[in-house]
Amino acid sequence: MPRRLRFIVGYDGRPFAGWQSQASGNTIQDLLETAFASIAQQRVRVHGAGRTDAGVHALAQSAHADVPESRLSPELWAAALNASLPPTIRVLRSRFVTEAFHARFAAKGKLYRYRVWNDRILPPLEFGRAWQVARPLDREKMRREAKLFVGRRDFASFAANRGHSVDDTVRTIEFVRVRERGPELELSISGDGFLYKMVRLMVGALVRGASGQAAAGEIAERLHNPKRLLARARFVAPAEGLYLVRVKY
Amino acid sequence: MPRRLRFIVGYDGRPFAGWQSQASGNTIQDLLETAFASIAQQRVRVHGAGRTDAGVHALAQSAHADVPESRLSPELWAAALNASLPPTIRVLRSRFVTEAFHARFAAKGKLYRYRVWNDRILPPLEFGRAWQVARPLDREKMRREAKLFVGRRDFASFAANRGHSVDDTVRTIEFVRVRERGPELELSISGDGFLYKMVRLMVGALVRGASGQAAAGEIAERLHNPKRLLARARFVAPAEGLYLVRVKY
Repeated sequence: MPRRLRFIVGYDGRPFAGWQSQASGNTIQDLLETAFASIAQQRVRVHGAGRTDAGVHALAQSAHADVPESRLSPELWAAALNASLPPTIRVLRSRFVTEAFHARFAAKGKLYRYRVWNDRILPPLEFGRAWQVARPLDREKMRREAKLFVGRRDFASFAANRGHSVDDTVRTIEFVRVRERGPELELSISGDGFLYKMVRLMVGALVRGASGQAAAGEIAERLHNPKRLLARARFVAPAEGLYLVRVKY
Repeated sequence: MPRRLRFIVGYDGRPFAGWQSQASGNTIQDLLETAFASIAQQRVRVHGAGRTDAGVHALAQSAHADVPESRLSPELWAAALNASLPPTIRVLRSRFVTEAFHARFAAKGKLYRYRVWNDRILPPLEFGRAWQVARPLDREKMRREAKLFVGRRDFASFAANRGHSVDDTVRTIEFVRVRERGPELELSISGDGFLYKMVRLMVGALVRGASGQAAAGEIAERLHNPKRLLARARFVAPAEGLYLVRVKY
């Protein structure tokens, strides 16, 4: 009888081609599955709460895998996985759960963080970990516009096309908080679900607005007329500033 | 007439073979000199306040270079250098100074930081940026022993052999502060000068003591009998936890 191992995994997004399995093999899912297989001596499928794109970091991605019966405790599974994973991927916690738990289908929401470095120079130790925006940003305007996203809304205009259309583009955003720390703007975004590249499209819109590049009322307009295409306005903030902070169940 | 450009440079130590010029060319000094040469169209020698080893980071290394007379302001020199440097090396500030200034000979002291991550697992985004110590550490003992270094002392027993002997091994340490942030121990070490690998030997001794691996009174003994060789005790903390924070003039 296999047992379901639930685990939390953190990663530096830079060295990898995102979460989802690919032929190249250099994805978080592939490297986890390789590590599981080397321990279990059989193919083990890993299910993540969601896919992160290449370059996106995770402080605590959530996942599960059905592992063959063995004498390994959840702690030993984590230690064995970490021994065969690169140091930029770490299994941080693990425990056995019933089959009622599914990392993706049981998820009730996610918390993301996006780091904007608003200065002419990006410190070398922040490279790949924040989006550098040299233009001055109107931080008050950003705080004001961030509130427009809160609530249950149709985010069709804040979703990238994934090659197939998504029927239901309504999502509920719990909060968008903007925290300042010197040149750094840290946005925390919590919601019950996110469309493809939705966080990065939201941050792109907020930064466009705060730098004076957007037309007045652009975000409100996009939320009000979600199906209207505003090609110029669909600016995706780069992956390296984005962190999956945690998945809620 | 050349002009002396004084500048502050930060770097992520991981991708590079340290500060000092080498045949391989992959050092901070080499990459800076290549950047200067591409702008000045002639060889420019860069003088740093001190050498950092491979893997050691700098928040603010201090340096100078004599650049040919040109219309470039110090700000434009910095921008031009950054345009040809990798993003993990950044010139953060620059200004013209008289020849009375010399980055190395005028330095009055340095401030270093050393980050110890005292937990079983090193978070993936801390890889290469802190020394992971899994063994429990007696933090009170570390604080107590850190004070032993303060003052004017002979640090011969806290210097690695560089292939040539140093005559004067007396240095003055202003403070060694230990700050706790959850699993992280951050040591700040300020002094008028440091022997080769001195900070890493000091941190190595403190961690050995705090983990119960050192004989009682080992640090005091090494400071009291500096020329006595205690081969076992000379443990060098790894480079990746060390940061040059600033150079004092």
